[in-house]
Amino acid sequence: MLNFALGPVMSSDLIIEIGAQQTPYFRTPEFSQVTLENERLMKELLGADEKSRVIFLTGSGTAGMEATVMNVFNKDDNVLVVNGGGFGQRFVDLCELHEIPCESLDIQFGHCLTQEMLDEYNNKEFTAFLVNICETSSGVYYDLDMISKFCKENNLLLVVDAVSSFLADPLNMVEQNVDVVITGSQKALACPPGISIITLSEAAIKRVESTKCKSMYFDLNDMLINGIRGQTPYTPAITILLQINARLNQLKDDGGIDTEIKRISDLANDFRAKIKEFPFEIKCPCLSNAVTTVHSNEIIETNLVEVLKNEYDIWVSTARDDLSKSMIFRVGHMGDLTPEDNDKLIDALRDMQKRGLF
Amino acid sequence: MLNFALGPVMSSDLIIEIGAQQTPYFRTPEFSQVTLENERLMKELLGADEKSRVIFLTGSGTAGMEATVMNVFNKDDNVLVVNGGGFGQRFVDLCELHEIPCESLDIQFGHCLTQEMLDEYNNKEFTAFLVNICETSSGVYYDLDMISKFCKENNLLLVVDAVSSFLADPLNMVEQNVDVVITGSQKALACPPGISIITLSEAAIKRVESTKCKSMYFDLNDMLINGIRGQTPYTPAITILLQINARLNQLKDDGGIDTEIKRISDLANDFRAKIKEFPFEIKCPCLSNAVTTVHSNEIIETNLVEVLKNEYDIWVSTARDDLSKSMIFRVGHMGDLTPEDNDKLIDALRDMQKRGLF
Repeated sequence: MLNFALGPVMSSDLIIEIGAQQTPYFRTPEFSQVTLENERLMKELLGADEKSRVIFLTGSGTAGMEATVMNVFNKDDNVLVVNGGGFGQRFVDLCELHEIPCESLDIQFGHCLTQEMLDEYNNKEFTAFLVNICETSSGVYYDLDMISKFCKENNLLLVVDAVSSFLADPLNMVEQNVDVVITGSQKALACPPGISIITLSEAAIKRVESTKCKSMYFDLNDMLINGIRGQTPYTPAITILLQINARLNQLKDDGGIDTEIKRISDLANDFRAKIKEFPFEIKCPCLSNAVTTVHSNEIIETNLVEVLKNEYDIWVSTARDDLSKSMIFRVGHMGDLTPEDNDKLIDALRDMQKRGLF
Repeated sequence: MLNFALGPVMSSDLIIEIGAQQTPYFRTPEFSQVTLENERLMKELLGADEKSRVIFLTGSGTAGMEATVMNVFNKDDNVLVVNGGGFGQRFVDLCELHEIPCESLDIQFGHCLTQEMLDEYNNKEFTAFLVNICETSSGVYYDLDMISKFCKENNLLLVVDAVSSFLADPLNMVEQNVDVVITGSQKALACPPGISIITLSEAAIKRVESTKCKSMYFDLNDMLINGIRGQTPYTPAITILLQINARLNQLKDDGGIDTEIKRISDLANDFRAKIKEFPFEIKCPCLSNAVTTVHSNEIIETNLVEVLKNEYDIWVSTARDDLSKSMIFRVGHMGDLTPEDNDKLIDALRDMQKRGLF
């Protein structure tokens, strides 16, 4: 199968080979070294400073989102949450569930965040800003430089869910004043799903340290303390941590984050140029490099996602048709894909068009 | 490395080979079938009835413990918790954190639970009974038949953490009136760590359905609803679920749970017979088949766990010396181990003895 889904994505042979090894026992100095190196390399890739820390939480991206909301915010906060789709709404729901005062900055599904929208929230009594920098349900990328400037002017703690955006779009924690970055193993890190990664600035660490988390498993302070010696309070998804280690070293050896962002961006641009021959539309002018959301103005009776899977051995991600009726599928550009793989998808679509399926 | 640790354990080639495959996209009917089959096979192995349900939670065993406490109990409960070591204490801490009324049935570290101890709690105002049936920190196995009888007489919901005991010691949910069983992927299931498995009886399901869980990620009711179609609310550790599927089918083909329990029990007895030649002691008369806890009455200066790892390529689990000073290590019998592997460990110990290390 050729996998253009938005996670899990195609892994390189290096990662695959580690999956084929026996899982090592982890309460050892050897495994601690792996975890400590993972922390160091993540900080390098994110442009985080010396005092930042990285937590590897066994769980999905949502586990990372919930742990962040529970540990970084408290009842004295007033969090402005960008809400332009399923994942923005999830952050609003999480804040409400954990009784964190918040306001939803509602954006129409598939639309960009503009300076005018932000201006309405200037000089209000907010303490923090929470955003899925790539809203994976629509593919929209929100302008991080613009957000960063707004947060600096308003003295807001900036928490960025970059689950799908990390390694696909530029992000530098120090230069862009980002306090928390959340990502996951199964997106552009191109490892199997199971690990969520939370990177905290010094300011965010102080918040975590002073918050009493009402969850044992999501207690980030406990993880920070154990992490000093390269360990976790509870048994982690060891194999995935080893795969992340290989992948982070591979990214470093290949030229770092800029090289990977350019590779993914080139792949996205290649696909977006090639898809133009079809009667489809890319409506969004602010897509993340990680994903292309494809629309059709005509009603298509055939479930193209199903046909691609069953007859062409190609996975793309389903559209959330509760959110946009015209969206037909989402194509990911993360992981071990090439322009030749794009051609295979285009060839399949050509054949489907010839068959009159759209 | 030869791995006698208490998780992760040695996996069979079948499991290893699945780790070497690309991770498939999971929002498909094909993957739903895998999950549904996992549920069916787990229920068979546990002797659960038709109305029981199984949840596969991406996280460690502690995630499963916390999710259970949060979803199965509520403030109207009064839970009797067997507390004879690190994991019993963890349940007490979890109940206290989530404001579940509970009483700690304290047992001296390494000691068995007796009928006399239980009798003290007869006809008190308890609603539920919570026990790590194998207290992994000491290796102690608590008598499930005795507990089951006590719970039936006192009309208590019986919640069993069988993380280390599942497939090593007998457990039948219907026959022993067990309402919840928690286990994990990395113990006798012999897959990599990352999945916790929670099996619920009809009575437990009713409790989950009527409890408002103050966590999005740990909301078992949401998982039950998604699980009907073989899906999870959030991206699971897909690869591990595929490995669990292969392993469950393998267990079924090999003769089911009794065959595996006998295999592990034989392996434990083999090791316990062979270890007698050394000046060590097995103090506990009620060990789980999953683990042998080895003590020494002499003070041993050498860290035997370190020497076994560094010089003999053998992992055993460290002793928790905050709990028992005389414990020197814990040897696991779960996973892809044989009597010949026991011999290798015995040979290594013989060599260490010859070298005067103990």
